[in-house]
Amino acid sequence: MAGSSFGTILRVTTFGESHGAAIGAVLDGFPAGMPLDEADIQAYLDRRKPGRSPIATKRAESDAVEILSGVFEGQTEGTPIAMLIRNHDQHSGDYRNLMDCFRPGHADYGYAVKYGIRDYRGGGRSSGRETAARVAAGAVAEKFLKSLGIDFLCYVSAIGPVKVHAQPGDPDFDRSLILSTPTAMPQAESNEEALRYLSGCMAERDSSGGEITLRIHGVPAGIGDPVMNKLDARLAAAMMSIGAVKDVAVGDGAAVSEARGSNNNDAFLPDGGNGIHTASNHAGGILGGISDGSDILMRLSVKPTPSIARPQQTVDIAGQPRELVITGRHDPVIVPRAVVVAETMAALVLMDSMMMNMSAKAEAIRRFYGRV
Amino acid sequence: MAGSSFGTILRVTTFGESHGAAIGAVLDGFPAGMPLDEADIQAYLDRRKPGRSPIATKRAESDAVEILSGVFEGQTEGTPIAMLIRNHDQHSGDYRNLMDCFRPGHADYGYAVKYGIRDYRGGGRSSGRETAARVAAGAVAEKFLKSLGIDFLCYVSAIGPVKVHAQPGDPDFDRSLILSTPTAMPQAESNEEALRYLSGCMAERDSSGGEITLRIHGVPAGIGDPVMNKLDARLAAAMMSIGAVKDVAVGDGAAVSEARGSNNNDAFLPDGGNGIHTASNHAGGILGGISDGSDILMRLSVKPTPSIARPQQTVDIAGQPRELVITGRHDPVIVPRAVVVAETMAALVLMDSMMMNMSAKAEAIRRFYGRV
Amino acid sequence: MAGSSFGTILRVTTFGESHGAAIGAVLDGFPAGMPLDEADIQAYLDRRKPGRSPIATKRAESDAVEILSGVFEGQTEGTPIAMLIRNHDQHSGDYRNLMDCFRPGHADYGYAVKYGIRDYRGGGRSSGRETAARVAAGAVAEKFLKSLGIDFLCYVSAIGPVKVHAQPGDPDFDRSLILSTPTAMPQAESNEEALRYLSGCMAERDSSGGEITLRIHGVPAGIGDPVMNKLDARLAAAMMSIGAVKDVAVGDGAAVSEARGSNNNDAFLPDGGNGIHTASNHAGGILGGISDGSDILMRLSVKPTPSIARPQQTVDIAGQPRELVITGRHDPVIVPRAVVVAETMAALVLMDSMMMNMSAKAEAIRRFYGRV
Amino acid sequence: MAGSSFGTILRVTTFGESHGAAIGAVLDGFPAGMPLDEADIQAYLDRRKPGRSPIATKRAESDAVEILSGVFEGQTEGTPIAMLIRNHDQHSGDYRNLMDCFRPGHADYGYAVKYGIRDYRGGGRSSGRETAARVAAGAVAEKFLKSLGIDFLCYVSAIGPVKVHAQPGDPDFDRSLILSTPTAMPQAESNEEALRYLSGCMAERDSSGGEITLRIHGVPAGIGDPVMNKLDARLAAAMMSIGAVKDVAVGDGAAVSEARGSNNNDAFLPDGGNGIHTASNHAGGILGGISDGSDILMRLSVKPTPSIARPQQTVDIAGQPRELVITGRHDPVIVPRAVVVAETMAALVLMDSMMMNMSAKAEAIRRFYGRV
Repeated sequence: MAGSSFGTILRVTTFGESHGAAIGAVLDGFPAGMPLDEADIQAYLDRRKPGRSPIATKRAESDAVEILSGVFEGQTEGTPIAMLIRNHDQHSGDYRNLMDCFRPGHADYGYAVKYGIRDYRGGGRSSGRETAARVAAGAVAEKFLKSLGIDFLCYVSAIGPVKVHAQPGDPDFDRSLILSTPTAMPQAESNEEALRYLSGCMAERDSSGGEITLRIHGVPAGIGDPVMNKLDARLAAAMMSIGAVKDVAVGDGAAVSEARGSNNNDAFLPDGGNGIHTASNHAGGILGGISDGSDILMRLSVKPTPSIARPQQTVDIAGQPRELVITGRHDPVIVPRAVVVAETMAALVLMDSMMMNMSAKAEAIRRFYGRV
Repeated sequence: MAGSSFGTILRVTTFGESHGAAIGAVLDGFPAGMPLDEADIQAYLDRRKPGRSPIATKRAESDAVEILSGVFEGQTEGTPIAMLIRNHDQHSGDYRNLMDCFRPGHADYGYAVKYGIRDYRGGGRSSGRETAARVAAGAVAEKFLKSLGIDFLCYVSAIGPVKVHAQPGDPDFDRSLILSTPTAMPQAESNEEALRYLSGCMAERDSSGGEITLRIHGVPAGIGDPVMNKLDARLAAAMMSIGAVKDVAVGDGAAVSEARGSNNNDAFLPDGGNGIHTASNHAGGILGGISDGSDILMRLSVKPTPSIARPQQTVDIAGQPRELVITGRHDPVIVPRAVVVAETMAALVLMDSMMMNMSAKAEAIRRFYGRV
Repeated sequence: MAGSSFGTILRVTTFGESHGAAIGAVLDGFPAGMPLDEADIQAYLDRRKPGRSPIATKRAESDAVEILSGVFEGQTEGTPIAMLIRNHDQHSGDYRNLMDCFRPGHADYGYAVKYGIRDYRGGGRSSGRETAARVAAGAVAEKFLKSLGIDFLCYVSAIGPVKVHAQPGDPDFDRSLILSTPTAMPQAESNEEALRYLSGCMAERDSSGGEITLRIHGVPAGIGDPVMNKLDARLAAAMMSIGAVKDVAVGDGAAVSEARGSNNNDAFLPDGGNGIHTASNHAGGILGGISDGSDILMRLSVKPTPSIARPQQTVDIAGQPRELVITGRHDPVIVPRAVVVAETMAALVLMDSMMMNMSAKAEAIRRFYGRV
Repeated sequence: MAGSSFGTILRVTTFGESHGAAIGAVLDGFPAGMPLDEADIQAYLDRRKPGRSPIATKRAESDAVEILSGVFEGQTEGTPIAMLIRNHDQHSGDYRNLMDCFRPGHADYGYAVKYGIRDYRGGGRSSGRETAARVAAGAVAEKFLKSLGIDFLCYVSAIGPVKVHAQPGDPDFDRSLILSTPTAMPQAESNEEALRYLSGCMAERDSSGGEITLRIHGVPAGIGDPVMNKLDARLAAAMMSIGAVKDVAVGDGAAVSEARGSNNNDAFLPDGGNGIHTASNHAGGILGGISDGSDILMRLSVKPTPSIARPQQTVDIAGQPRELVITGRHDPVIVPRAVVVAETMAALVLMDSMMMNMSAKAEAIRRFYGRV
């Protein structure tokens, strides 16, 4: 439990450094009997793959995934699914000037203090590249959840000052743009405006932050566990564990601070069956840590890429001041590539919580074992 | 791991329902040899105790804690520290009208779907009362961390539209007010303004949200684990596991979305010794999930108390619409009582992470076992 | 995870020292909807209660259990079930002569080195008294498993050289004797012979070891998880965690060393339906860590009570030799009181594993969520 | 936590099926700063490698390990160490006749019931081949513990009726034979006698069980955690998780059942410094779950290889009886190859426990953080 595993029943462990031999993930506890092949996973990896647009790093990784275990005759077999992604296009030489100093905004200093030694090449373990391994594992979970009718809508809702104003359902909200625009924004106009903004940042050798919105539709009510393992607590941990995320909002998020109970409570209405639906969704689908059957709504704020080509003030390992200019290949904005990371991390949390939930009632256990 | 435990080496497990016999906590893994008695813990519990001001519930719980184990001759002995708080002033009759319907903004519906049965009295397990047990455990951790020179400054920074504008260090920032004002605001003016605002809310049978700010000073660099157990990921889980929290910000939080790398990066400066300090603290003291030695800065947004005395639209357990009027004793604002919960949860996370960190270097293990 | 918790989904945490205020257990993850009251648990606690026979310690604890949480209107509610047992009849003065030396055969020295301080009264946390808390938790699990038709037969099969030769089903195997004889032996003749043997031990101020046999009938096939969480690995940990146990055998146990494949393999036979049964049960019902539907068979060897009234050679905390005579009240044999501990620990392991097993198949998850 | 991970701070996760693409391990939590290369690990893997003697399967796997991550410039870097072993010499065709029936003595039936689908080729995940991945991880831990002066002596002490009578220190106990004899017996005479015995077994198309003895010297006192995570409980789980192990003995093991306190207690003697030593070692170095500084002594009983070339009675997946003849390449005795598995699993448990122990005292934490 030194930090590279996540989940309780469904548990992912990742490994690998940015410029080492490979990165990968082991997904343990995944149920047997789901069809799975590498193409299922590759489709997700391709969404975060570098080198695909003018606003993403030029590092040309194919990010081709190999399933090493856990799949037999095209189906998951209940055993750990190990997935391997070899590193190829490492320009480790680019990092030579970083070996004896600490990049501002990066984990370099903390790692150096903690471990004494440090893989300075591309950030080593602290690189965003690690998230490819999570995406591989989360893709497997998301495939399963989709088969239960659960839908993940995850997109960039802001880059710098440029916001997506359209909401899902609005005429100018085009879901297909998430996969086709370089910004992963679902609104054509915002995408163009954001690209212009990013051009400006790049011209100034600068980078931009942004925001990701996540909506999960079709989650049954009753998912999540009380107190410490609240569904939102686990989602918050998952999201905040993505390197550059600095804020996690559920439902109305920070706006609740100024709200009143009378307008923040979501009235319950009959849904015709024996469930409920809510007249509004300020809570983001989670009350007391348990899903209420409404859409789960989250927003993440992602900081600007800390690697910028401007001179920066830092300190070297001897404690001396130094002016640092970072070369190498870096994204002017991370947020479009982080979308699929957030989406698949959410899938891992949700599937784990849904598996946990199966034994919440004595009657359900009795029925499973044929004793009702 | 069904949800009531938190932590890896230092692990707290809480139990208890709002109107059951008792609530309590078992803190396992706490090191031996720290002086501890009930007064140490009681001081923290008194900070969240109900019934102390016009803006807190009238429920008159003494919240007297009894240490059942883990302390011998006034010192912790390394074994689980069990702490018990009996419930006394339950007016369970107040909840009779809730037994067959679901309160908006509460966990009632989720619990009902998940478990089939539900303790409707005061929210049962989902009650904020559960957090008293966490405070008891966290108080023990905070006592230890204080002995290492780590300082927790945690206060209410907003109630509804009323903000605390003073920053720590400013002349009108008076830390002593956190414990003495009903709002837990460290600025006399804000406290008064907030009380006026809350009077208005109460007159309208309404409630208000708010914001908590947390600053932890003196955390060594190098604390936190990579990837999934990032210090901020674990803090985010801890904070979001507090019932009404809907947003967790680290450092600049959501503002990073509009920031640029050039102004979001914190320049490193020599600190005279072999460490560093940062010229600014946009990151909130955590980079790549590892502390950098700067102050750890967080903000939490807390939703308005969902129990309000106005008629609300809901559904009963038969799926029929119902107009609900909640009686009973409820806080018009939760946020002042949540301050000590956030503070002590942070202490639990930090102490656990610091214990984990002791074995990060081979040399440290060798030294501990006398082999260097 | 400093050692006082056990289990994955169904998780027990115990607390308490032998001569502290109380001992207890928190059972988290137990499903909602099972009827439960204190009498269910008390019946199990009474089986290990001291003071009931000439061969058990005279310490007269009532071991009365109080349920503090997790039960509402007579039913489990899915939340942690906290159970409290106050300590009463402590003669802590008996231990005064032990405060500065280490009892042979006890954990005193290890605790002193590990923690620096040590509750010398009755062994503190290392006392067998701690197992009462496990029994309370395990009783809840066993009640549930019985409702699924699973039967636990657990008894003393040897005390010193006196063996129980009768097997379940034999005419002289009388199951009712387990609860009614002081030895917990299910054979009248063995019981009497063992009592004579123990009289001799006591006359010589000595103590005796013994053996416990456990048979669990009705466990479905397919329970247990691969590799590290094998059902037998988890049972072995549970059994070896009971203080005095020094050997754990599954099925034929140590005899397999001399066996051949041809006589150790259990042939599979059709059972008429689509299951199997085995022609023999050398494996003890577990193959590759997964149950095969046969009876689960285990044997535990329990060391003689280390507290004996003879002079013993030891060392004091200053490193000086000392001759020690232990007074106080001690069992001449532990094994009869350990039977219910082994039985209920096995119930905890089995129930947890059965809950884990519910999500092993994708189809089972789909069916649970109404998608098959 | 579906079964393929083990450990708390130092945590290994294995993956892979016998006839899949690869097997491997991820070792997380290993401290930074230990020199490590593939040769360190390969030496251990070679000890369990198949195809090396007449009494081991003819499967000719090179078992060449590749370190994928966690090592930088020849040193561990504190991040997960992923190790990969490709499968090569699979004769999956040998298993064609097993695809629709269950091998006696194997996990086939349990896996089929649990997962619905099953990799019938060489036992899939339940194959002993999985243990190569554990050996890779455990080799890393053992390398570190050796640097602390801890010595692992692990050997075959019996094959069928042939016992090793020599004890460590006896003139005819030759430790070097463990690595050089096919039986891993440290006594020349026993080795020859066992080989003759095994020839007989093979001639009769049969297999033999055996016994492994483990002695760990140099373990500091105070290692292990109370109650559930007792050092022996964790070791027992580790050992019983090795496929064919059916009995785990600590110290005198099952013999304690017939012992008396007066001869089972190990007297404490001064050791000259401020520690102790014991006059005997019936306890096997562990009292109350905590090490006492004596040698840790364990014995494991390993069942005969269930795959034998004689006709056996079984059932097919349609529930029909079938006579099965197993072809393929199988060891007539597993126990020599299991020695290094037991040894390295013990190293993993011990190192994890030693890392956990570092935070047992408040003073140790204060000293680590420079506050004593």
